[in-house]
Amino acid sequence: MSVDRSLSPLFSPASLAHVGASERGTYPAEIFQNLLEWKGRLYPVHPSRSEIFSVPAYPSVSALPEVPELALVTVARQRVIPVVEECIACGVKAVVIISAGFAEADDYGRSLQRRLKELSSRIRIIGPNCAGLADVKNSFFMTRLFAKPRRGGVSFVSSSGALMMALFGSFAGRGIGLRYLASLGNQVDVCMEEVMDYYLDDPETTVLTAFIEGVGSGDSFVRLLQKAGRKRIPLVAVKSGRSELGSRIAATHTASLASSGRVFEAVFRQYGAILVDSPAQMLDVALLADTIGPPAGGRIGVISQSGGAASLTADLFSRYDCFSLPPIPESLELRLRRIEGIPDYARLLNPLDARGDAMRGEKIASLITAMGEGGSWDLLMLLFAKNPNREVEVQTVRGILAVRKQMKLPIVVVWIGEGDGGPDASQAFSMLKDSGIPLFHDPQPAVTALAALLRWSQMHKDRENCA
Amino acid sequence: MSVDRSLSPLFSPASLAHVGASERGTYPAEIFQNLLEWKGRLYPVHPSRSEIFSVPAYPSVSALPEVPELALVTVARQRVIPVVEECIACGVKAVVIISAGFAEADDYGRSLQRRLKELSSRIRIIGPNCAGLADVKNSFFMTRLFAKPRRGGVSFVSSSGALMMALFGSFAGRGIGLRYLASLGNQVDVCMEEVMDYYLDDPETTVLTAFIEGVGSGDSFVRLLQKAGRKRIPLVAVKSGRSELGSRIAATHTASLASSGRVFEAVFRQYGAILVDSPAQMLDVALLADTIGPPAGGRIGVISQSGGAASLTADLFSRYDCFSLPPIPESLELRLRRIEGIPDYARLLNPLDARGDAMRGEKIASLITAMGEGGSWDLLMLLFAKNPNREVEVQTVRGILAVRKQMKLPIVVVWIGEGDGGPDASQAFSMLKDSGIPLFHDPQPAVTALAALLRWSQMHKDRENCA
Repeated sequence: MSVDRSLSPLFSPASLAHVGASERGTYPAEIFQNLLEWKGRLYPVHPSRSEIFSVPAYPSVSALPEVPELALVTVARQRVIPVVEECIACGVKAVVIISAGFAEADDYGRSLQRRLKELSSRIRIIGPNCAGLADVKNSFFMTRLFAKPRRGGVSFVSSSGALMMALFGSFAGRGIGLRYLASLGNQVDVCMEEVMDYYLDDPETTVLTAFIEGVGSGDSFVRLLQKAGRKRIPLVAVKSGRSELGSRIAATHTASLASSGRVFEAVFRQYGAILVDSPAQMLDVALLADTIGPPAGGRIGVISQSGGAASLTADLFSRYDCFSLPPIPESLELRLRRIEGIPDYARLLNPLDARGDAMRGEKIASLITAMGEGGSWDLLMLLFAKNPNREVEVQTVRGILAVRKQMKLPIVVVWIGEGDGGPDASQAFSMLKDSGIPLFHDPQPAVTALAALLRWSQMHKDRENCA
Repeated sequence: MSVDRSLSPLFSPASLAHVGASERGTYPAEIFQNLLEWKGRLYPVHPSRSEIFSVPAYPSVSALPEVPELALVTVARQRVIPVVEECIACGVKAVVIISAGFAEADDYGRSLQRRLKELSSRIRIIGPNCAGLADVKNSFFMTRLFAKPRRGGVSFVSSSGALMMALFGSFAGRGIGLRYLASLGNQVDVCMEEVMDYYLDDPETTVLTAFIEGVGSGDSFVRLLQKAGRKRIPLVAVKSGRSELGSRIAATHTASLASSGRVFEAVFRQYGAILVDSPAQMLDVALLADTIGPPAGGRIGVISQSGGAASLTADLFSRYDCFSLPPIPESLELRLRRIEGIPDYARLLNPLDARGDAMRGEKIASLITAMGEGGSWDLLMLLFAKNPNREVEVQTVRGILAVRKQMKLPIVVVWIGEGDGGPDASQAFSMLKDSGIPLFHDPQPAVTALAALLRWSQMHKDRENCA
């Protein structure tokens, strides 16, 4: 009997059985409740209850009124194999197994996982020992949900379930819009490359992000990197287990064989994928790729409210050959001098030290328009220092938003001096995030992430020109 | 006539005249209002008003009922010289000049600054073109206040006024306690090294932080670094103007001659001061230095809620020769296995992948105590992934706080998955910050800052041994 190997039933099922759904227990109850938001046909399977959170429940998969496309399994490990066998017998196309205690655990778990491996020729399996997945666009949250995600074009696949769930909050906090998320656990069947490949085929995925402990095979991973390059979709990944100790930890974690760090680094470099050192760095690059996309070039125009931030940021850009900060043309200087708030005596360089007065409301709108139209930049960076007056910050953001629509240039905002995160503190920041303007709170990660994305862009542009 | 060159009248005056105090205008009004919290004798000087914010005002410095120790000047630049001359005539010991438009501006400004320079032989001057200063312990906020600061041992001096003010929010947000802050503007008299020297003589300053555009003289700066080393006070600095463009920007900003980046880097290395690339990195190191102090050694014990975070963090530590992650001793393994929530089958390595259940409330207290007592570590790092249940996070922090008092080991917390910063999201984080436990949201900056501080510690320990 052949089996449909497509991952569609996993990410976009029409119907779902949740075997192990319950009104108690962290995973069983929380995930089931999250699934209530989804528009598909949802069937809780429970040995004795007639309903779970008011949804009619059934004693087994075979007792359901239809064959579900997908089954989610959150039962104890010793009950997993019979459930999967029943799913196969009924014609269920795929299962996601959240239950843990398999090859990452002990001899009994390894024997269970060997049996799952055999069964995977007849059904697609994500897991075991994973934290589920999500199709954010369709509110299909088959996982615990640590923060409300935004919809967007960034897809994420993770070897680590805890990290995937934790990063819901980070993605949301950075204003990054998500398309798909998946955690793969022990990868008894569906592996990292296959999910990435599925994401690459999704027309709405614009950025691919990953936390990788190990991959199935070097060949398939290289083919995947090539495909991402052809599709001009940046792949931004954290790879753990690059050190000897890290790889031993990874082995106990998801029982994956972590490939050597140096090999990974070489492969990423060769195929123009972006390897970063930590989740925060991954988010930095993903944020830029999601909001402004890969920059067309490295000519940066900088407008700064603080001379100190301006000189520091010039230093940071100067470390990269790919960037240049061209001088302000004379015609632009004349135009800038007519803007109220620019001190008469200020020397107009790039970075433009515009002082505080010219950086809010209508004035910053004029400033951005003048800079945008009057110079040859590929990108404008705006540097602010936090103001104690929240209303001034909101006026500043309104000024930015008023002109950015007619601007062709991408804008990156660095706002130094993040406060204590109280609700009123973040209104200006929320406005930026909601408008798809990338926001950083320190120039160093902004410049570093821009450099990574620009190198990606240049590498794939060169390839295009050669083709 | 000789003049008392001490900086005490600047940072700890008994009495202060604010020349230019007003109920309107950003600097004049905001700073005056901030000064109302201070316990010293405060005299607004205003040409016509009889009171400012209900405080009796005087038409001139000479009309005051006493000679103030310090004068704060926020009048227009053309009125600054007469005010300073009057202060000298009255016997005022020092002035802080916030007014701008001097050497950073035009020919007229340069001539004004030359005159100030002459006057500085008869009175101490901070500025012009600065943003003031603060003695946090005594609520002496002679600056705009962008966020309520915590009291503590970190002193900060900045070439940039905007950065100093913006960083109030960052220091507070990171839970860093402050002692003194000062912004120096054009440094016509009091320079960077002199303020740093004043901080080093302050018994309550434990960490010295600085944003440096340029210094007065190489010799005095080297003497300062030597003194910081002798006093075992870490100096953590951002130096702007390290690149050619950055130094041109710095020149227009505070008219300071930015020294060459490479010279600075060499001097910092030689004298064991910590040079970082951005304000955020400065805060990372200052946070560790302020809370746990320089680590005694590089043997790190890691407890992680996420296997993925554990292997990634092992990678990050492995990049530095100064760190080691010693294995869990057998006796400790036996003890750990008795803790509820540690899965029977988990292999106990360091980093210890403790999974979620053993990482909250009383269980994490047992775990930390066992790890702390059972191994030879210099520091414990706790890695968490954000939980959707705020109450669970609070229980976790309560568990940490319950045992850390009897613990000799310093603890560093990395909590991945910062949310949107809503008020309920941050209760657990606030508890950590209020208890002086350093908190990071990504392992990379935590490991990088620890490495910088450990190298500092080892360098100065070696010196001690040789002495």
